[in-house]
Amino acid sequence: MILCDIGNTFLHFYQNGRVWKERADKILSQFQNQEIFYISVSRRGEEAFLKKFPYAISLETFGVLDTAYIGLGVDRKCACMAVEDGVVVDAGSAITVDIMQNGVHLGGYILPGIASYLKLFSGISERLKIMPNLSLDLDLMPQNTKEAISLGILKSIVGFIQEQAKGKRIYFSGGDGKFFSKFFKNSIYNEILVFEGMLKAVEKYRESRL
Amino acid sequence: MILCDIGNTFLHFYQNGRVWKERADKILSQFQNQEIFYISVSRRGEEAFLKKFPYAISLETFGVLDTAYIGLGVDRKCACMAVEDGVVVDAGSAITVDIMQNGVHLGGYILPGIASYLKLFSGISERLKIMPNLSLDLDLMPQNTKEAISLGILKSIVGFIQEQAKGKRIYFSGGDGKFFSKFFKNSIYNEILVFEGMLKAVEKYRESRL
Repeated sequence: MILCDIGNTFLHFYQNGRVWKERADKILSQFQNQEIFYISVSRRGEEAFLKKFPYAISLETFGVLDTAYIGLGVDRKCACMAVEDGVVVDAGSAITVDIMQNGVHLGGYILPGIASYLKLFSGISERLKIMPNLSLDLDLMPQNTKEAISLGILKSIVGFIQEQAKGKRIYFSGGDGKFFSKFFKNSIYNEILVFEGMLKAVEKYRESRL
Repeated sequence: MILCDIGNTFLHFYQNGRVWKERADKILSQFQNQEIFYISVSRRGEEAFLKKFPYAISLETFGVLDTAYIGLGVDRKCACMAVEDGVVVDAGSAITVDIMQNGVHLGGYILPGIASYLKLFSGISERLKIMPNLSLDLDLMPQNTKEAISLGILKSIVGFIQEQAKGKRIYFSGGDGKFFSKFFKNSIYNEILVFEGMLKAVEKYRESRL
């Protein structure tokens, strides 16, 4: 069985605990006689994917999460489905922070990702066009523009996640997930969180076929 | 005596507690036999200003702050000079957060301003191009993208300032200063903070002439 999480630029594949990614416009993988399940947040990526794997099965309607949130992306939904109690953080171009309690999704926040912050500062003023230092100690008192921006970004994101977690376990995924997880004692970096949720959706799919 | 704080687009004037602003490229005020002191963070604004008031006196070298911070803008320096103990927040296109203790500047942070956050989200994804609702209750659990972004921005900024303040008094100025001050019990909105610091610099100037 193959799982695929389709984004705008990349397709993320999963098979027996192994993960890899491929460009949506240049899919190399070949699968013979294998079930393929997928979710997608990209119309374009999905079209390219289905051209290559027309028999793939969408898990869209089987990613079922107990939530009042309107418009939760299917990837975010699957990541949350993998967590019974805790805070689910996907740190990429945007940072999503979702709160799970007893298997119920209580709500979630969206922050800009680190790369977006940097682009932003260079847009405000020439003086703020600075390559930040993200390895600074959070307890340092900033003494120049570079430190002021670096710690402004870092501490506002880290402090925000800490505040929402209120002692709960924090599950990180996404490109900057590993980086952020090191700031928290009670955290796990789990790059296959979305796939764990997709496996639950596959179970729901199988139940529906009985 | 007139004070002027020169920015890129606007000149901010002060006379006997009264403040007003004028476009740098269209200065209307006329002053007869009056001392004029100024600070500037804009070369272009300063040139236009000095063409009209060639006899104005720069307070640049009299804005003296006990700090190890390299490259603190003169306007930020003057605002800090006005505060003995507390947190000085200038909330505009960027948000600066400076920590004063016993008249000493311990350091400072720079965050994006609210307007910059919004521009930023629209750059990440079409889905995030949303006019946020900044009047939401901070305790609300976001249940859609608009609330997720609005409260992500608000809570990360407010939480960050709260964390740095550690119970100290918070002095707000800048275009969004009044808006932010309402989230804090121990805060003051003071739009003439920079001018209060400039008045101290004028004293230093007078002492130097004795």
